[in-house]
Amino acid sequence: MAYPYPQPLQELIQAFSRLPGVGAKAAQRLAFHLLAEGREDARRLADALLTAVEAVHPCPVCGNYTDAARCAICEDPQRDRSLLCVVSGVADILSMERSGRYHGLYHVLGGVISPMDGIGPEQLRVADLLQRVRSGGIREVILATDPTMEGETTALYLAKKLKPLGVAVSRPAHGMPVGGSLAYTDEATLEQAFRNRRPL
Amino acid sequence: MAYPYPQPLQELIQAFSRLPGVGAKAAQRLAFHLLAEGREDARRLADALLTAVEAVHPCPVCGNYTDAARCAICEDPQRDRSLLCVVSGVADILSMERSGRYHGLYHVLGGVISPMDGIGPEQLRVADLLQRVRSGGIREVILATDPTMEGETTALYLAKKLKPLGVAVSRPAHGMPVGGSLAYTDEATLEQAFRNRRPL
Repeated sequence: MAYPYPQPLQELIQAFSRLPGVGAKAAQRLAFHLLAEGREDARRLADALLTAVEAVHPCPVCGNYTDAARCAICEDPQRDRSLLCVVSGVADILSMERSGRYHGLYHVLGGVISPMDGIGPEQLRVADLLQRVRSGGIREVILATDPTMEGETTALYLAKKLKPLGVAVSRPAHGMPVGGSLAYTDEATLEQAFRNRRPL
Repeated sequence: MAYPYPQPLQELIQAFSRLPGVGAKAAQRLAFHLLAEGREDARRLADALLTAVEAVHPCPVCGNYTDAARCAICEDPQRDRSLLCVVSGVADILSMERSGRYHGLYHVLGGVISPMDGIGPEQLRVADLLQRVRSGGIREVILATDPTMEGETTALYLAKKLKPLGVAVSRPAHGMPVGGSLAYTDEATLEQAFRNRRPL
């Protein structure tokens, strides 16, 4: 018995199920929704996809997404150009900007060092980072890779490369998350939180 | 501080988050994935969306999706044209076809009667169904709406309309799911399973 769906519907379901986190059932539900009640949404999504892949590219300076020659943050005259925050991905910039507490510039690595996955410094925007620091004007580099093993390794590697260039190098504090509870905090975090305790 | 993403990226995230079951975080993850490593996937998804909304429409006979004048099942000469299975949605056809046990035709209602949501028989493909049965050749109608309150109501309503037309009307059996456990079966299902017990 042949599959009862017409070819274009099968292809739509397959295209959805290629997306990360979208299983076969969800892909089918999405396709059915768009055909049943969301034909306008489907056209809008198709337009948005084509426009985005056409217009959006990494900022040549920092790696943030932009549809211009440079990204909005690099172009913003209000930002502190002496402060550089190194993050692994573009999504990290959004989290930082949401906090509203950081006013320096960014540098997106495009990942973290992970020998298991064959990712070394050459696969990341490390040479760009060093070049950027060498060309001057930067006072401090904050290494804000995730507090995972790969993130720590990457931060240590970058610190070793950056310090000889005469910039301050720092890393965000580890500790208990705000609103967290001691009972549910893992040992490694607790250990860091106690070691880095501050006088009141 | 302005949102740091370029307009086309914001629009892509918004288009994704309009889809059912896709939250703001997931929409962002999808957009980032497609821009970072899936530009070909993005173009393929856009193509699939445009082709599907253009080419795929409900079969005028049964309501199944098709890109032709009639759907593959209605056109299949192997199917038993005297047997009609009434389902609430197109997705139900896939489940039925996967079981591989049904070889009749289908009729998609496009929902179930639900006065709370303002859905009565006029909002469903009920007149089409009665017309289809009246035009002859159908021996039995199986009312396979879901075993929910609305599904039961819809089945009872259709049974009342169909029986005077001289066709057999049936409903799939209720009972314990295959592979289920008595301890985890709800009371209503257990009651039906015991009432409809079969001699061995």
